[in-house]
Amino acid sequence: LNSAIKSGKVRAPTHIISTISDDRGEEPCYAGVPMSTIVEKGMGVGDVISLLWFKRSLPRYCTQFIEICIMLCADHGPCVSGAHNTIVTARAGKDLVSCLVSGLLTIGPRFGGAVDDAARYFKDAYDRNLTPYEFVESMKKKGIRVPGIGHRIKRGDNRDKRVELLQLFARTNFPSTKYMEYAVEVETYTLSKSNNLVMNVDGAIGTLFMDLLSGSGMFSKQEIDEIVNIGYLNGLFVLARSIGLIGHTFDQKRLKQPLYRHPWEDVLYTK
Amino acid sequence: LNSAIKSGKVRAPTHIISTISDDRGEEPCYAGVPMSTIVEKGMGVGDVISLLWFKRSLPRYCTQFIEICIMLCADHGPCVSGAHNTIVTARAGKDLVSCLVSGLLTIGPRFGGAVDDAARYFKDAYDRNLTPYEFVESMKKKGIRVPGIGHRIKRGDNRDKRVELLQLFARTNFPSTKYMEYAVEVETYTLSKSNNLVMNVDGAIGTLFMDLLSGSGMFSKQEIDEIVNIGYLNGLFVLARSIGLIGHTFDQKRLKQPLYRHPWEDVLYTK
Amino acid sequence: LNSAIKSGKVRAPTHIISTISDDRGEEPCYAGVPMSTIVEKGMGVGDVISLLWFKRSLPRYCTQFIEICIMLCADHGPCVSGAHNTIVTARAGKDLVSCLVSGLLTIGPRFGGAVDDAARYFKDAYDRNLTPYEFVESMKKKGIRVPGIGHRIKRGDNRDKRVELLQLFARTNFPSTKYMEYAVEVETYTLSKSNNLVMNVDGAIGTLFMDLLSGSGMFSKQEIDEIVNIGYLNGLFVLARSIGLIGHTFDQKRLKQPLYRHPWEDVLYTK
Amino acid sequence: LNSAIKSGKVRAPTHIISTISDDRGEEPCYAGVPMSTIVEKGMGVGDVISLLWFKRSLPRYCTQFIEICIMLCADHGPCVSGAHNTIVTARAGKDLVSCLVSGLLTIGPRFGGAVDDAARYFKDAYDRNLTPYEFVESMKKKGIRVPGIGHRIKRGDNRDKRVELLQLFARTNFPSTKYMEYAVEVETYTLSKSNNLVMNVDGAIGTLFMDLLSGSGMFSKQEIDEIVNIGYLNGLFVLARSIGLIGHTFDQKRLKQPLYRHPWEDVLYTK
Ligand SMILES: CC(C)(COP(=O)(O)OP(=O)(O)OC[C@H]1O[C@@H](n2cnc3c(N)ncnc32)[C@H](O)[C@@H]1OP(=O)(O)O)[C@@H](O)C(=O)NCCC(=O)NCCS
Ligand SMILES: CC(C)(COP(=O)(O)OP(=O)(O)OC[C@H]1O[C@@H](n2cnc3c(N)ncnc32)[C@H](O)[C@@H]1OP(=O)(O)O)[C@@H](O)C(=O)NCCC(=O)NCCS
Ligand SMILES: CC(C)(COP(=O)(O)OP(=O)(O)OC[C@H]1O[C@@H](n2cnc3c(N)ncnc32)[C@H](O)[C@@H]1OP(=O)(O)O)[C@@H](O)C(=O)NCCC(=O)NCCS
Ligand SMILES: CC(C)(COP(=O)(O)OP(=O)(O)OC[C@H]1O[C@@H](n2cnc3c(N)ncnc32)[C@H](O)[C@@H]1OP(=O)(O)O)[C@@H](O)C(=O)NCCC(=O)NCCS
Repeated sequence: LNSAIKSGKVRAPTHIISTISDDRGEEPCYAGVPMSTIVEKGMGVGDVISLLWFKRSLPRYCTQFIEICIMLCADHGPCVSGAHNTIVTARAGKDLVSCLVSGLLTIGPRFGGAVDDAARYFKDAYDRNLTPYEFVESMKKKGIRVPGIGHRIKRGDNRDKRVELLQLFARTNFPSTKYMEYAVEVETYTLSKSNNLVMNVDGAIGTLFMDLLSGSGMFSKQEIDEIVNIGYLNGLFVLARSIGLIGHTFDQKRLKQPLYRHPWEDVLYTK
Repeated sequence: LNSAIKSGKVRAPTHIISTISDDRGEEPCYAGVPMSTIVEKGMGVGDVISLLWFKRSLPRYCTQFIEICIMLCADHGPCVSGAHNTIVTARAGKDLVSCLVSGLLTIGPRFGGAVDDAARYFKDAYDRNLTPYEFVESMKKKGIRVPGIGHRIKRGDNRDKRVELLQLFARTNFPSTKYMEYAVEVETYTLSKSNNLVMNVDGAIGTLFMDLLSGSGMFSKQEIDEIVNIGYLNGLFVLARSIGLIGHTFDQKRLKQPLYRHPWEDVLYTK
Repeated sequence: LNSAIKSGKVRAPTHIISTISDDRGEEPCYAGVPMSTIVEKGMGVGDVISLLWFKRSLPRYCTQFIEICIMLCADHGPCVSGAHNTIVTARAGKDLVSCLVSGLLTIGPRFGGAVDDAARYFKDAYDRNLTPYEFVESMKKKGIRVPGIGHRIKRGDNRDKRVELLQLFARTNFPSTKYMEYAVEVETYTLSKSNNLVMNVDGAIGTLFMDLLSGSGMFSKQEIDEIVNIGYLNGLFVLARSIGLIGHTFDQKRLKQPLYRHPWEDVLYTK
Repeated sequence: LNSAIKSGKVRAPTHIISTISDDRGEEPCYAGVPMSTIVEKGMGVGDVISLLWFKRSLPRYCTQFIEICIMLCADHGPCVSGAHNTIVTARAGKDLVSCLVSGLLTIGPRFGGAVDDAARYFKDAYDRNLTPYEFVESMKKKGIRVPGIGHRIKRGDNRDKRVELLQLFARTNFPSTKYMEYAVEVETYTLSKSNNLVMNVDGAIGTLFMDLLSGSGMFSKQEIDEIVNIGYLNGLFVLARSIGLIGHTFDQKRLKQPLYRHPWEDVLYTK
């Protein structure tokens, strides 16, 4: 068959289309860039993500920002849903992939989903020229908490240092931080309502990512909408948290922890 | 291309082989039996398992035994690893498949694995003509607990009713129960050591399944070894427990439970 | 701590609620029914599903119908998304659970989702007293194909035997088949448009399940809505197809198939 | 209860132990290092991996090497098992996590497993002072191909550039490259047997990772054995490939690809 195809006698339609990488040549290429070039040029993990997810070489400040987000979201302790399920699976003696996966599957609307939501809602509100008052109150009417706003511990007079660092990095390196500054205005309004309604890490990452996309000048309006719809920030969170979940797996295996059984006393058996 | 293939001008090698079912005709066939025949003949879930896993129509007492095993293993409360992870994922607001899968991934050597192990060890010991004494003591030397023996609550004078029911069913319907009777002899010996070392459900299912395979006269010695190596009983446990895990998902969604976070106080943070 | 709790000195709030099964006593109970009772009464797999998912003992014709649905959906050949991914994972040498799970994860809106959708749309249309004409044309306006209608091969003069068997079973055993008969009327209308727009298995299962719930008299209107919202039929499909996916895993392992690599020629590498 | 615990009246035993991160304070810590310090010090993704997996701050050349490995393993085209299953799941319309996970589950002994195996076998051979001849021939006797040796395209006179780049980086930055140099000697021997038995990327990463661990002077012999046993390199591959799998998911969603069905003609239906 292959020889018949090569000789042009028959035409086989392909069943799969792929655009991000090519493994047919001497060395694999990411969005057209050969792997060895990536190493020789001293590119980082953020650059590879840029090539494979966005199919273009984003400027260094963008890929550095992506790397910072990954570092900040890499882990959040053993108690959250993802780490917990990974720990339980590791203690059942399962292999690394099963442990990681069992944890990843908890990521969604309630766990890890706030970053994408923050990006979506703030972008929409800014693009529609809503005042902070209009935005917050319209959310309240819909009964939705503004994603990216609110913190269990932090207060208006005791900000989250990570948010400040992200803001500092972006204000220093980004050509524009309009979405994030809009979120600051929203924060000013929500802080007037309650002292714990500060911008949180999810809000900072979500809005700054919108600034990255629109400020870089490398994406059309349509492309940005597509990225927001598909939910790329979810991908960033999933990748980042994989570092932590793999770490928790190694941790439990090192500690040789036995099978976990949830204590009966902690369960209300009812009808 | 297809017309070229049909006309016999080119020969396309296939990349995949499959033997259990065929979906190309008017209606799908399981191991050659059309679906409508399955319904018309009044076959049960056990018969379909027999066709798709064993590629033959096992006698009714065999498929009934398979169904009983599925019913007995369908659930074991919300505290075991599998149900727990499913519950956590359901409370993270994820879809049914994610919830089910997150729980299934905990099934393995420590959770649910005892049935296959019991089958393997008892079969091996019986086939090698080990006396119960030789078998149990050789296991002890290797530092392995005899799988299928031992119960948290049940005692020599207060047997597990499920084990008794399985034994009753098999003694009434199976042509031979030699593996299970061997396990009874082993139990007699272990009970002489400690009063809680009774045969448990895993032991009963594992050994009776060996009796089913060898007693039916429908499997060659080689086929039985293959089935034991591949670990079919694991498949039975996985399928059975899926019923329970899906049930727990529905349960949590009905109860509208919020995101689960493991309590900090229950974690020892150390180095 | 436990002794302090028992002595009533401290009260520990529980973090988990569960209602379907209880594993604390001498033997596990499903919705209050002890496992041994289930075996002694000669209950089947459908009855256990009834207890664990619906928390009640449905009449035998209901649980028999559930079992028939499981048998009909157990497999659909090696080419569909689920079986294909399971086969690829099995050929990568992974354990049974990983193989099963990799396939299950493809089940969703496009693969396996038609049953739930058929139930939802037909129930909604019937309850709102839409004529077949109004229903089909309103769907057309929304650009949605009526789920449960249409078949690649079957025609108005060559019905799907499985559909006929399901209809026969229900007309003989169900107190009412109003939703299914409504679908028959819809089919009459769609057949007038095109000869292949017959009721398919998804349509028959979906509408008959609605008849089961409402006809049994054991569910309140609210409970039925909850069941439809949560998507129980998806659970039925997932459980059923697990039989096939486990079968495909065993099949590939028996056949000792090597690592699968999709052929380069079948991929269009583009930008 | 909490107040009773705090007042010291009851002691609650913890059910979970965790050592890699702490989320109880004002900001999460990775192995004792607060997140903000990580950003302020300009650490990279490799440093975070170092903290969460190895619980120590490895020197920059180590974490840079980790990052290079991640970049080289991030993707290998759409045809390999992992990418293929992810693509099929994406085309079934499932969410990002399901797509990623369906692909990850194929990673194991046959897909992605060579790196860990190369590390294990070469470390073992070097530590036992086997000559290349003894090592290769003993493997041959066991019927195992030397993992990390052999390439489909590359030849002794046309080396893999990525291997050369890894070697260059390590020879320039590592205090010792003894395991890798040993692999070079093994390669010299295998090349004398056949011209395509060159060291491949898996061999280079596996042996250099052993050099990293032993050369850094920061791990005891016992700790290195533990790391090799648990299979940390598998974790590196899994994390790296997640970048590619997420990329393939985005790619298919961007391309709005329909449900994949494997072509019937490519399947051999047999008994
Ligand atoms: C952090 C958080 C839980 C704090 O909640 P809390 O202090 O218990 O606040 P309450 O639920 O008591 O709400 C107090 C008031 O603040 C309002 N509020 C809370 N969070 C709000 C938000 N994000 N946006 C707007 N208003 C908010 C509430 O509606 C309530 O208003 P009301 O008194 O007029 O009814 C909450 O702000 C939140 O969930 N924020 C979103 C968090 C987020 O992005 N999380 C990502 C986690 S990964
Ligand atoms: C049920 C079980 C936990 C009971 O354990 P226990 O009462 O705490 O027993 P201990 O661990 O204190 O052991 C007491 C003695 O019985 C022995 N013993 C326990 N289980 C044994 C077994 N399955 N086979 C042989 N000896 C066993 C122990 O080796 C120990 O002997 P020693 O005193 O000479 O050292 C244990 O028997 C077991 O794990 N059995 C296997 C369970 C199984 O099939 N599980 C499937 C679960 S799904
Ligand atoms: C089976 C099926 C693919 C047949 O498709 P087909 O023969 O290629 O039909 P076409 O797509 O060419 O459509 C032909 C006409 O029938 C209509 N049509 C097709 N399926 C329809 C349906 N389910 N309901 C209403 N109209 C339908 C189309 O809109 C089209 O109408 P038009 O000519 O006015 O535009 C299609 O009917 C279908 O997808 N049905 C739903 C299948 C289902 O339940 N699947 C479950 C699978 S597990
Ligand atoms: C790349 C590879 C497939 C090349 O295979 P090939 O050219 O088809 O080689 P063959 O299978 O025909 O073997 C030719 C000879 O080389 C030997 N050989 C092949 N690979 C070998 C290896 N890795 N180590 C030692 N000998 C090897 C074979 O045993 C055979 O010897 P023989 O003729 O004495 O029987 C093979 O070398 C390989 O699988 N290497 C390991 C690859 C690895 O690390 N993969 C990671 C992928 S992610």
